[in-house]
Amino acid sequence: MIYADHAATTKMSETAKLAMLSAIEENWYNPSSLYTPGQQASGVLMDARVRISRCLGCLPKEIYFTSGGSEADNQAILSAAAIGKRQGKMHIISTAFEHHAVLHTLKKLEKEGFEITLLDVGESGIVDPNQLEKAIRPDTALVTIMYANNEIGTIQPIGEIGAVCRQNGVLFHTDAVQAAGHLPINVKEDQIDMLSLSAHKFNGPKGIGVLYAKTGVFLTNLIEGGEQERGKRAGTENLPAIVGMAAALEEACALQKERSIYVTKLRDQLIAGLKKISGALLNGDEIRRLPGNVNFCFLDTEAEGLLLLLDNKGICASSGSACTSGFLDPSHVLLAIGRDPQTARGSLRLTLDYENTPEEVETIIEAVTDTVRILRGC
Amino acid sequence: MIYADHAATTKMSETAKLAMLSAIEENWYNPSSLYTPGQQASGVLMDARVRISRCLGCLPKEIYFTSGGSEADNQAILSAAAIGKRQGKMHIISTAFEHHAVLHTLKKLEKEGFEITLLDVGESGIVDPNQLEKAIRPDTALVTIMYANNEIGTIQPIGEIGAVCRQNGVLFHTDAVQAAGHLPINVKEDQIDMLSLSAHKFNGPKGIGVLYAKTGVFLTNLIEGGEQERGKRAGTENLPAIVGMAAALEEACALQKERSIYVTKLRDQLIAGLKKISGALLNGDEIRRLPGNVNFCFLDTEAEGLLLLLDNKGICASSGSACTSGFLDPSHVLLAIGRDPQTARGSLRLTLDYENTPEEVETIIEAVTDTVRILRGC
Repeated sequence: MIYADHAATTKMSETAKLAMLSAIEENWYNPSSLYTPGQQASGVLMDARVRISRCLGCLPKEIYFTSGGSEADNQAILSAAAIGKRQGKMHIISTAFEHHAVLHTLKKLEKEGFEITLLDVGESGIVDPNQLEKAIRPDTALVTIMYANNEIGTIQPIGEIGAVCRQNGVLFHTDAVQAAGHLPINVKEDQIDMLSLSAHKFNGPKGIGVLYAKTGVFLTNLIEGGEQERGKRAGTENLPAIVGMAAALEEACALQKERSIYVTKLRDQLIAGLKKISGALLNGDEIRRLPGNVNFCFLDTEAEGLLLLLDNKGICASSGSACTSGFLDPSHVLLAIGRDPQTARGSLRLTLDYENTPEEVETIIEAVTDTVRILRGC
Repeated sequence: MIYADHAATTKMSETAKLAMLSAIEENWYNPSSLYTPGQQASGVLMDARVRISRCLGCLPKEIYFTSGGSEADNQAILSAAAIGKRQGKMHIISTAFEHHAVLHTLKKLEKEGFEITLLDVGESGIVDPNQLEKAIRPDTALVTIMYANNEIGTIQPIGEIGAVCRQNGVLFHTDAVQAAGHLPINVKEDQIDMLSLSAHKFNGPKGIGVLYAKTGVFLTNLIEGGEQERGKRAGTENLPAIVGMAAALEEACALQKERSIYVTKLRDQLIAGLKKISGALLNGDEIRRLPGNVNFCFLDTEAEGLLLLLDNKGICASSGSACTSGFLDPSHVLLAIGRDPQTARGSLRLTLDYENTPEEVETIIEAVTDTVRILRGC
């Protein structure tokens, strides 16, 4: 079997698994407890916070542990909205191709009276910082733009976006769920105020993520209760998962450069191979995309058929986001970059990682070429 | 070391750990994916849902996976409030000694215009269903009363409360975080509309819980995004933790009766031993309490001293809830059952489980007796 759906989820690395297991065995105590093993757990929690903050270029106290990327996105946006509301700022800028954790939260805020501007991302799937600057108004409370797109992998000019936001005194949140561990991230340098990440996208455990919030950004609680996470996120800390995430992120960051070079080569090999299929349209900018992301539309095909036939050939792929892949509506991301609905329905996302090989890529190229041919009745 | 703080958290059972590990190794795929291993993961997810629903006496589709008890409590209460608001019902009934995940959520709703009635729980720490019935009004949207208290362990007459609520057409939610796996629960028999539980309280993994919501109870999303959990809780499913929880709950329910008899004996041994200390006041009803829960106030002592000296003797104990145990304010639970603040400050919670032994209980009795003597300067 060839797994080419790393954007959906990844297998835990040995490092992450061992770290998690060790916490399950040794540091399962409640970190809020006063006795020695509880305080040791509390120390391990702090250590994980420090290690993660170093990977992101922020302070340990700017790290809030959440149950994953969706929760972090929700909390970031609702917090910025609450701050904005108190200041009479009810305008938010985003893009039409954000993850649903962002878009659905924005829809909720729209019902509460917020005005949402969705920036055009063009055919390339990349935001223009000049366009962003023009969209900012005196009542803009937040700019939320993803670091890298989850379907087409395009990487946004985050540093430039951060600079525009900072210069205009607007809070900037980025959903970095696809980027964390795969691209070098530094929230200070890129002037990011809030950032979301999810461990299972970089070989860490599921059910754990981070909301980074710059000192001074007042968070609104999604989950009320105990005083965990400086009173901003209630619930007994999931220490085994947190420790697993710290190990996974450190590993991913340490090997990021090397893996990125390798995976980019695989990606370009795959793009080159699939381009040879007639009626194959690459979605998103060819260069400024995640190392492992390949996303095509094949004219006169439908995603469901592509995926099922590829599955028969032992290839795990996706039509777009796993969060909606049960529903084979055309992807909102592909519509946002200007694909018509009919074309968008024939989409195929293949996301590679360091475990894949050039031989696997060749197999995928053959299988996709064959599958597209079959679906076209040739 | 003697661990007597099982209400704070428990160590994962071997069964739960093996189940979780197997999912980490074999079923780490995204259950929303269309390919075979994704669909297999989806099957495993469904299987866990079925197994958990059987332990609770509900339908599989009435189970919503959350990141834990706090999230489930928040979502249950906010959902009921939203339903009530649409019907012009803005009154909620609870008790003063609920967990903060409930009380803080109610406080938030109070700011939004809801009226909250907190029932008296008396010296025994048990709600009177007649008093509840009197408190119900035509505009009552929700009754939320915990199954068993997390500090003093008192068990509420849940079946009677459920009957009163059902007869009066009021939604009934119970925080069963301390009860699940330790008491027999049947939501149908007890006429419970919503119930929260957390896996790490019954030897399951941390970071995972359940919100049971009866068919027809419309849930409000805390976390927006993907269509997981029938669109009611976004975020990639934490399958390893869910599978670990299912294994832990099945094990706890299968052994519940037998363990309960054993642990109750230990509890009564401990209560009898500690009662001999002068100025020792048992908190909460002596009989109608969780099998493992012992909670005393010792006059002329302070909890911090008790805990630190017991830690020196290798005993892990708590002053009350772990969620607030960093803060040695008098417990709101003890104030609710009528302890004065000075007395409440000298509280000690010892929570036993099936791993504890009669010998450990004897050691605890000696250690506490000695510690109280030392703190009183005798």
